[in-house]
Amino acid sequence: MSESKLHITQTVEALRAHLGPWRDAGERIALVPTMGALHEGHRALIRRARAMAPRVCVSLFVNPTQFAAHEDLGAYPRSESQDRDMLVAEGVDLLYVPELLEMYPEGDVTRITMPGMGDCLEGEHRPGFFTGVATVVSKLLIQATPHVALFGEKDFQQLQIIRRMVLDLSLPVEIEGVPTVREVDGLALSSRNVYLTDEERAAAPALYRALKSIRDHLRDADGHDGGALPEMVVREVDGLISAGFTSVDYLSVRDSATFARVDDMMSLAGRPGRILGAAQLGKARLIDNIPL
Amino acid sequence: MSESKLHITQTVEALRAHLGPWRDAGERIALVPTMGALHEGHRALIRRARAMAPRVCVSLFVNPTQFAAHEDLGAYPRSESQDRDMLVAEGVDLLYVPELLEMYPEGDVTRITMPGMGDCLEGEHRPGFFTGVATVVSKLLIQATPHVALFGEKDFQQLQIIRRMVLDLSLPVEIEGVPTVREVDGLALSSRNVYLTDEERAAAPALYRALKSIRDHLRDADGHDGGALPEMVVREVDGLISAGFTSVDYLSVRDSATFARVDDMMSLAGRPGRILGAAQLGKARLIDNIPL
Repeated sequence: MSESKLHITQTVEALRAHLGPWRDAGERIALVPTMGALHEGHRALIRRARAMAPRVCVSLFVNPTQFAAHEDLGAYPRSESQDRDMLVAEGVDLLYVPELLEMYPEGDVTRITMPGMGDCLEGEHRPGFFTGVATVVSKLLIQATPHVALFGEKDFQQLQIIRRMVLDLSLPVEIEGVPTVREVDGLALSSRNVYLTDEERAAAPALYRALKSIRDHLRDADGHDGGALPEMVVREVDGLISAGFTSVDYLSVRDSATFARVDDMMSLAGRPGRILGAAQLGKARLIDNIPL
Repeated sequence: MSESKLHITQTVEALRAHLGPWRDAGERIALVPTMGALHEGHRALIRRARAMAPRVCVSLFVNPTQFAAHEDLGAYPRSESQDRDMLVAEGVDLLYVPELLEMYPEGDVTRITMPGMGDCLEGEHRPGFFTGVATVVSKLLIQATPHVALFGEKDFQQLQIIRRMVLDLSLPVEIEGVPTVREVDGLALSSRNVYLTDEERAAAPALYRALKSIRDHLRDADGHDGGALPEMVVREVDGLISAGFTSVDYLSVRDSATFARVDDMMSLAGRPGRILGAAQLGKARLIDNIPL
């Protein structure tokens, strides 16, 4: 990596000036959008990007429109120096760190909404969240016009909403989902895990275990009755509360594309399903999901 | 124009395949989005496009998402054969006529909203209209990625909303507004004018005259009291009803950029203002506007 050199740009104009020659030379460009506070999950995104394209651009922008007024925008973890070290170590070519007015020009009103699939699960518990996500990601994709953009499966509903938006708007970019990176005890990596106390950290993997229990239950019930899913979910919610979680926003089985509710394997009729969960543990709101 | 040859494409893929070589060769591309039923106003757009770019693409798509359930989507005027004759005569290079599923893929949910400037005037009287407009125009701009796109000032609020959207989303396109083309008696050209009976057609220019009366009133009042605008507008509304209009949706003076209400010249503080009106005349809903 000794030849790697990390350029940093702050404006759309400079971003395009940097990417233009690479594109003109026929080099594929991969974009990894982040909010900083980088961890091994981001490293997996960047390595996958490196494998897919000779030029990797990482964006770092803590997007205010995806935070509700009571959420942790002001306290969102920042680790700019360590972030840069990781980007240099991974041979990232370009870091795009736009100012607020570069992403939301004065007088900005435009919002991208995803009715239906953006209103359930995370969208139900964080109203406006996916409008903020879809809006900022569309801007980043239009600004950088990469060949491929990578997002973690950890935020699975976000990933699928971005896939849908890209299809609907004819954005000329491939969306690549990268599997969730986990601690050895199963906890999904998240920038917000730093909010956990030692005790909470010990309890945190129960969310992942609950998702796996639901998956096993559904698989065992496949072809049989399978009607006990609601009771099963209630038991898992109770288990999380017993394990120390403050509250459970949802544990739910959904169609992977539309996020319609799934009651059993048969109702999926062969389409991919996903089990998703979100729960509060002390100051951290944890989310996780696994394929059915 | 004997060398002109009008190509017709129906898919995003074919559109991009056609435009790509022109762009690679450094030729500027102008896009003129239309809903067909072309008239002299469209011809003015195309001629302005021709003057700005060596390659002109016209799109023809009657966009269902900008029509409310009770509106005239099914009855919207169509004149495909005459439309093509005009495009050939004007030396247009490419006609893009996408199918519905090309613009709104199966399962489509993505919508672009413009809160505030999209909710007043036309947006108030046609709920959802500007969401439909912003959504379809963003798709066309992303699909064709022209250097310049042209829109008529006749739909002034639409023009300004598109300018705002392009700025907010960092779309790399120049938006060019083209002055309204009028009949000799002042009626703004519109595809919907064909709905007018002879009697209604004779009454129709009263809308333009009302806008000019309000402008003259405001200019005369500049620096003086000027407080009589509301009464003046009421008189003009009454005048339109007397002239045979069925109802008046609005006659209003606005800031040209934000569409905030303007009460007198001083409140604009030098910013451009616009006088806009919309009124029903028989089966036709007429809109018009002039600069202040």
